[in-house]
Amino acid sequence: MSSGPVIETQLRVRYAETDAMSIVYHTNYIVWFEVGRGEYFWQQGMNYADWERQGVYFPVSEVSARFLAPAHYGDLVTVRAWVQEVRSREATFAYEVLLAETGQQLATGWTKHLCVDSEGQVVIIPSRLRKVLEGGSEHEQK
Amino acid sequence: MSSGPVIETQLRVRYAETDAMSIVYHTNYIVWFEVGRGEYFWQQGMNYADWERQGVYFPVSEVSARFLAPAHYGDLVTVRAWVQEVRSREATFAYEVLLAETGQQLATGWTKHLCVDSEGQVVIIPSRLRKVLEGGSEHEQK
Amino acid sequence: MSSGPVIETQLRVRYAETDAMSIVYHTNYIVWFEVGRGEYFWQQGMNYADWERQGVYFPVSEVSARFLAPAHYGDLVTVRAWVQEVRSREATFAYEVLLAETGQQLATGWTKHLCVDSEGQVVIIPSRLRKVLEGGSEHEQK
Amino acid sequence: MSSGPVIETQLRVRYAETDAMSIVYHTNYIVWFEVGRGEYFWQQGMNYADWERQGVYFPVSEVSARFLAPAHYGDLVTVRAWVQEVRSREATFAYEVLLAETGQQLATGWTKHLCVDSEGQVVIIPSRLRKVLEGGSEHEQK
Repeated sequence: MSSGPVIETQLRVRYAETDAMSIVYHTNYIVWFEVGRGEYFWQQGMNYADWERQGVYFPVSEVSARFLAPAHYGDLVTVRAWVQEVRSREATFAYEVLLAETGQQLATGWTKHLCVDSEGQVVIIPSRLRKVLEGGSEHEQK
Repeated sequence: MSSGPVIETQLRVRYAETDAMSIVYHTNYIVWFEVGRGEYFWQQGMNYADWERQGVYFPVSEVSARFLAPAHYGDLVTVRAWVQEVRSREATFAYEVLLAETGQQLATGWTKHLCVDSEGQVVIIPSRLRKVLEGGSEHEQK
Repeated sequence: MSSGPVIETQLRVRYAETDAMSIVYHTNYIVWFEVGRGEYFWQQGMNYADWERQGVYFPVSEVSARFLAPAHYGDLVTVRAWVQEVRSREATFAYEVLLAETGQQLATGWTKHLCVDSEGQVVIIPSRLRKVLEGGSEHEQK
Repeated sequence: MSSGPVIETQLRVRYAETDAMSIVYHTNYIVWFEVGRGEYFWQQGMNYADWERQGVYFPVSEVSARFLAPAHYGDLVTVRAWVQEVRSREATFAYEVLLAETGQQLATGWTKHLCVDSEGQVVIIPSRLRKVLEGGSEHEQK
């Protein structure tokens, strides 16, 4: 279990994200997980793009999601993201998507990530990245 | 030419929006046009989803876009949207996408829209929608 | 467990499906699951769109996926889809995505679906749809 | 004008490609343009991915599309792609999207491409690529 922060991001549902059922197509909730995860890194003072430029990648190796209630075009939704577990070479983020106006839970899920180098080899998570995942920001380390 | 407002929206580039060239895949700029257009309606006090519930649709009948410089993951971009022309049954929005930090122009374009009913027949733009397109908000009309 | 058929679909990776790691963005494998599921229905003589026109929907309520090896632009991939379990109001499809040339496993996963009516209420799976899910085609029933 | 071949690709509309109007979201026709363009290269014996590995990129610098009639989930569509013009540093592809069953025209458009190197500098189109764009296949050259 992580004692790190829960980061909230708000976004408005795009028409491009809806499908013929007039609701958000299911994989877009998982794209929103990515948006929430990116925001987690930003708010911890870390630019994930910089890590990639240094050859450290954090691809999704596993995803699980439950869709509880549909979002519609124009809805304002809140994505909550936090780190659930950190191991030496992998970490798990967890997510919750809520309808911003009412707080109704729309989806929950998690993604597991492996730390890999530019050759695609699994490597030990660098200590500065590990610190961010454990909830201490990069800023604090400097 | 329209004398209406130019509406600005900011968004951060998602990883899902990038491609194997490490830049934003070109059709996503056109999705951002949609985001800017939706924001135009919101800021004019209009909920486009409500119009659809009343059987008034405004699908894209034509699009043109020029890609001038690439956006990358994590970039903050500004989408500027305004109404360029309103006719009895169609209207044209124009757009500009800028890198928020520097103001560098990344893309420009326009979309033409036909007003159609729930049977897909082209119809005259309802006067309240026309007012919004001409830059007078729905709020003002009440 | 289902004794129904395993349906294979081949598709070529689109540039739009890649991301800045030069590999396929993870949610696109789940879109491919949908392509494989649709092909399952087609090959069982069923047009899913017809069911929706009759007010029977089969939205994804849960998804799980593991990403084992990356696909790249231009790769030909095989999606294998089959029904794993059918209950009175829900069913589970399972999937495997392979690199067509070598048979290398790229991703595995499953999706759970609830049968709902046009009001979004969960309903018992109609017997004809149930038959298709159990591996007997619609054709056979006529 | 080009005297090269017109390449046809067939694809079935994905649920992921539809939107809340129950029709295909407009930018997906432009993704299909990309699919048709990729198939053009394949059928000319050229693997575009190999060119990128050699540092030759062919990004979209401009796009224009007209949407004439909607495609729906499950529709089989034909994408026709051909080279319209080749200049020293840029080329233009043109496209037509048809409903396969009836031949009804759904969309038309074109994309302009600049030839750039791995630094993003515009360069002269290499002669082998130029040959492919002019309708002579890579195979013929060997």
